[in-house]
Amino acid sequence: MRRIGLIEVYTGDGKGKTTASIGLAIRARAHNFKVCYISFHKNPSKFKYAEQNILKKLKIDVFCFAKKHPFCDKIDFNKLRKDCLCALDFIKEKIYPKGYDLLILDEINISIRDGFLKEEEVISLLKNKPKNLEIVLTGRGCPSKIIESADLVSEIKKIKHPFDKNIKARKGIEF
Amino acid sequence: MRRIGLIEVYTGDGKGKTTASIGLAIRARAHNFKVCYISFHKNPSKFKYAEQNILKKLKIDVFCFAKKHPFCDKIDFNKLRKDCLCALDFIKEKIYPKGYDLLILDEINISIRDGFLKEEEVISLLKNKPKNLEIVLTGRGCPSKIIESADLVSEIKKIKHPFDKNIKARKGIEF
Repeated sequence: MRRIGLIEVYTGDGKGKTTASIGLAIRARAHNFKVCYISFHKNPSKFKYAEQNILKKLKIDVFCFAKKHPFCDKIDFNKLRKDCLCALDFIKEKIYPKGYDLLILDEINISIRDGFLKEEEVISLLKNKPKNLEIVLTGRGCPSKIIESADLVSEIKKIKHPFDKNIKARKGIEF
Repeated sequence: MRRIGLIEVYTGDGKGKTTASIGLAIRARAHNFKVCYISFHKNPSKFKYAEQNILKKLKIDVFCFAKKHPFCDKIDFNKLRKDCLCALDFIKEKIYPKGYDLLILDEINISIRDGFLKEEEVISLLKNKPKNLEIVLTGRGCPSKIIESADLVSEIKKIKHPFDKNIKARKGIEF
């Protein structure tokens, strides 16, 4: 691929961050790009993220790290920090050398916001990316230093959400 | 399907509106939902929206109406208004009766913002939707009356975009 890969961030409290990253994966794959999707704080064996199955079907590589969510699960901080660091090592050692065009780090902003990853650890990861690789970071609460080092940042603001009317997350729509 | 379909809006000047709707289509399809994607102001024979091919491959029905864009093409206002009205008739007569679970109206907010469709025409379309059908409207400049009638609204704000650095739209990323 000839273009230079940029850093994209999707943050904010509205619906559409992970969903946009799934859309980006699909668009890139439609052009035969080599795509890798890595989720943080999601456990597909506990909760069915059906979209991940379609990604796999389309030959997008899917990996899940740090499978506990700080808001939804009982967590051991040190264990979760270790899991997140494992993910960074995996990316550097196993993903970067493999010539991917697009790498999605879904919900990694949560890992940084809640201190499982330090800002400088993620910035160093981004700085050392292969030149052609586009990296997408999603999750609310993206810290300002990450925003500074990104080329594209969209803040997805909640104007309205059915959760406010006590409508629970719906299969096929929210997950 | 048992759940009640809601109205979702993705608007704002940032990247991620169409992309989020593609992600929603994929997630819904992953649950075997029946999905229809209708674009406004996009001409796939002029510009390759490769993501539409993946949608078709996944058995999502794809239709394109009003194929000229008010910002990018020379347009005939009356012709484009007629095309948009055709789309509304098509949705009412051909899509609503067919038991879809999710209907995406990509960039329809542009049609309303630029007067090709009147707010009340779209609101009437939304009011008469089948109960179980979830409808997603995308495009910048969503008018306030549409926002009022929606259940979920995300405003995607541009914090940064590579366009500002004169980086042009990139294949596989922006289209």
